[in-house]
Amino acid sequence: MSDTLLSRLADVVGDKNVLVEAGTMSGYLTEERGLYTGTALAIVRPASTEEVSRVVTICAQEKVPVVPQGGNTGLVGGGIPDATGRAVVISLTRMTAVREIDVDTGTMTVDAGVTLQDAQHHAAEHDRLFPLSLASEGSCTVGGNIATNAGGTAVVAYGNMRDLVLGLEVVLADGRVWNGLRKLKKDNTGYDLKQLFIGAEGTLGIVTGAVLKLVPANRSVETAFIGLSSPEKALALFRRARATAGSGLIACELMPRIGLDFVLAHGSGVRDPLGGPHPWYVLLELASPAEQSLRETMEGILEGAIEAEEVDDAVLSENLDQRGVFWKLRHLLSEVQKHEGGSIKHDVSVPIASMPAFVMEGIAVAESVVPDCRPVPFGHMGDGNIHFNISQPVGADKQAYLARWDEMNAAVHAVVARYGGSISAEHGIGRLKRDLLAQIKEPVEMDMMRRVKAALDPDGLFNPGVVV
Amino acid sequence: MSDTLLSRLADVVGDKNVLVEAGTMSGYLTEERGLYTGTALAIVRPASTEEVSRVVTICAQEKVPVVPQGGNTGLVGGGIPDATGRAVVISLTRMTAVREIDVDTGTMTVDAGVTLQDAQHHAAEHDRLFPLSLASEGSCTVGGNIATNAGGTAVVAYGNMRDLVLGLEVVLADGRVWNGLRKLKKDNTGYDLKQLFIGAEGTLGIVTGAVLKLVPANRSVETAFIGLSSPEKALALFRRARATAGSGLIACELMPRIGLDFVLAHGSGVRDPLGGPHPWYVLLELASPAEQSLRETMEGILEGAIEAEEVDDAVLSENLDQRGVFWKLRHLLSEVQKHEGGSIKHDVSVPIASMPAFVMEGIAVAESVVPDCRPVPFGHMGDGNIHFNISQPVGADKQAYLARWDEMNAAVHAVVARYGGSISAEHGIGRLKRDLLAQIKEPVEMDMMRRVKAALDPDGLFNPGVVV
Repeated sequence: MSDTLLSRLADVVGDKNVLVEAGTMSGYLTEERGLYTGTALAIVRPASTEEVSRVVTICAQEKVPVVPQGGNTGLVGGGIPDATGRAVVISLTRMTAVREIDVDTGTMTVDAGVTLQDAQHHAAEHDRLFPLSLASEGSCTVGGNIATNAGGTAVVAYGNMRDLVLGLEVVLADGRVWNGLRKLKKDNTGYDLKQLFIGAEGTLGIVTGAVLKLVPANRSVETAFIGLSSPEKALALFRRARATAGSGLIACELMPRIGLDFVLAHGSGVRDPLGGPHPWYVLLELASPAEQSLRETMEGILEGAIEAEEVDDAVLSENLDQRGVFWKLRHLLSEVQKHEGGSIKHDVSVPIASMPAFVMEGIAVAESVVPDCRPVPFGHMGDGNIHFNISQPVGADKQAYLARWDEMNAAVHAVVARYGGSISAEHGIGRLKRDLLAQIKEPVEMDMMRRVKAALDPDGLFNPGVVV
Repeated sequence: MSDTLLSRLADVVGDKNVLVEAGTMSGYLTEERGLYTGTALAIVRPASTEEVSRVVTICAQEKVPVVPQGGNTGLVGGGIPDATGRAVVISLTRMTAVREIDVDTGTMTVDAGVTLQDAQHHAAEHDRLFPLSLASEGSCTVGGNIATNAGGTAVVAYGNMRDLVLGLEVVLADGRVWNGLRKLKKDNTGYDLKQLFIGAEGTLGIVTGAVLKLVPANRSVETAFIGLSSPEKALALFRRARATAGSGLIACELMPRIGLDFVLAHGSGVRDPLGGPHPWYVLLELASPAEQSLRETMEGILEGAIEAEEVDDAVLSENLDQRGVFWKLRHLLSEVQKHEGGSIKHDVSVPIASMPAFVMEGIAVAESVVPDCRPVPFGHMGDGNIHFNISQPVGADKQAYLARWDEMNAAVHAVVARYGGSISAEHGIGRLKRDLLAQIKEPVEMDMMRRVKAALDPDGLFNPGVVV
């Protein structure tokens, strides 16, 4: 059957777009972080929605599981097949057309395989902003961003990917195409079906195209790098900035001193922007589509915060280069942790008001599990989203430390649960947290998810083993 | 069986909260606009989520259809039972508790029966804004706003109700309670189930509680009443205001001269704010949470627009009273149409860029169907949402005119379809557009909706005859 299948698939996409050799497949079968490696019957690379539809139809007929994949930058195994070798991976990376930009409506219609960076660039060429921004933007795809409801550093002002999608085109589990490519801000004609596919990690359908929301490009920006004594002070600063700048507050990123130490030790072309060390730092950014100075607003926020003893020291970027340097400190935070040995990771969120208490309790709990471990909690203050990463003790055995991953997870997630938080704020469930999901969700919620899954993918062929 | 049913329901909610007399039921069985009147076995008024759950469980056991109802301010029959008299109406209006306000997180957790105005007031008491705003806010409920994904006048800045809901509590068709009352901005743990119930018009579950998003209260506001020559100029003005003020633009309402004429003729305490007549008007409002003057920004927008010949005349409100007067002109627009005889209504949206062309073509099409009819298209410029109401010709017979409702709808909706628009931008489908929905949607989309419906309400007992 497999030979028939492969030749039928080749009839659709052409021989050279059905990869079956281990060497050519390997890049599609391993995640960057190395946690997941799978096997597959083939990697199929369709070039159009119609080809995706025909590929899925064939797989449905042959009862072959399908794993959709974008830029393969996920961190939870959501785009990697399991080890059975039964699945076909459908890579969307050949679908890279920008179908339309409608500047007046403020929309951009793209193929799912367009990279986030290309989408940003196309918007910028038309003097618009596509505001989603995250570390892997050079290689992650819009389709993957939709499938995972991606977050990033600009969520505080512009929302998650879900908030930036107006319409979708989706290939369903039986191969039919749903054309929901609408450009409407208001449309109450029945169930908002696109919401089902956003964040479903490819388990309900394959997103092949999307209408994205554009916003006015920012013409003014003001960025500050701020030293302060605690997450509690950072929250007070966030509230102050938000009350003053409203949706003009476009980033409020928290990082601990140890994170900055790691960046200074392992990053190149970086230096501490402030005179002396501080226990915590905030990168605060304001922006406006108007040509106006935001300096006074930023200074007003910081002066008030210094007076209220929320902030100990701060420096404002004098130009775009310096702004780039501030952001580099933030962006390098994930990467540099690799140089400090093993790191046990958590991608969690809590209600914003609970974030300071959660961070301090999380640190205490981590240290109780592995004494001398080095928590590096950093993330998106305005979203209550913390990447609660914990580096191994200095000089410890990496494998022995990483062997305690589940134990550490359980301890930290227990604190998350106490604050009504989420164990996956932006990375999704994938294979990594699938079993955990069933444990932490109430049975009624798992039952609803399974009903939705069965309604749209009755044979369970779309990304089996992921999410539900 | 019916007697057993009623006594079982009375055991849950108390005798006086099971209404069965025609007199006491009538207020729950007719819509304000008079298009829908239904009959019911009883109106049941539970006081808590647990009571709703028990009532639904009983109805499910007895296979009795259930019609959830909020403030009964809908316009499409979505909260009114059919004429068979088989259904039980569950009114949520006794559930009026504000369960919690979490100022630091920016959330408010409320019962579904809280009126929109009470929700706004509770937020304001804590120096926060709950930004949804619409004509019926004094009596519509948060639960109804959720069930219909309500829109209104502030969507351009703050989004529809869907964008303002962080978490939901829902009673499912079998009586189970789903507790999804989360306060998280980021939560990628499986399917975003709350999205299913928002805008589902009570066909998939009964919303009993919600976590609403609060935003910083505005401390500065600047409002202008503007005369201009066409919807095209209004779009140019909208683009200019948006590019300057970004999300500080909180309202951009379009109305035609005939609408203002109606208001001036039939409203009390109103006058034309501008010296001479203009074919079209825009009410433009900027706001900011900072204590700052927006006068300069507004003046800059208007000066640029006058220079570019987009705007012919404009007046800025000098104080909150005058602002109230401007808004009164806008808010009276619907009501005063009643004094001008029959009005055939359309609640439509198109991509923003297509709005000027749609409005002009819509007017031409309406006049071709009924010569001398008087189109009064008004609405939310920034959302592409037009209430395309058409008053009867002067002196025409009202009933004869209204008899052409379907014909007029078909003609106008054909224009909407050509522009990729929606036939229900904010009022929903209800009973009014249920058959139309099945005609305009592609079969694949209707099939998906029916699958979702069957998955969550397999016996079809929740609001039968509505939406799907």
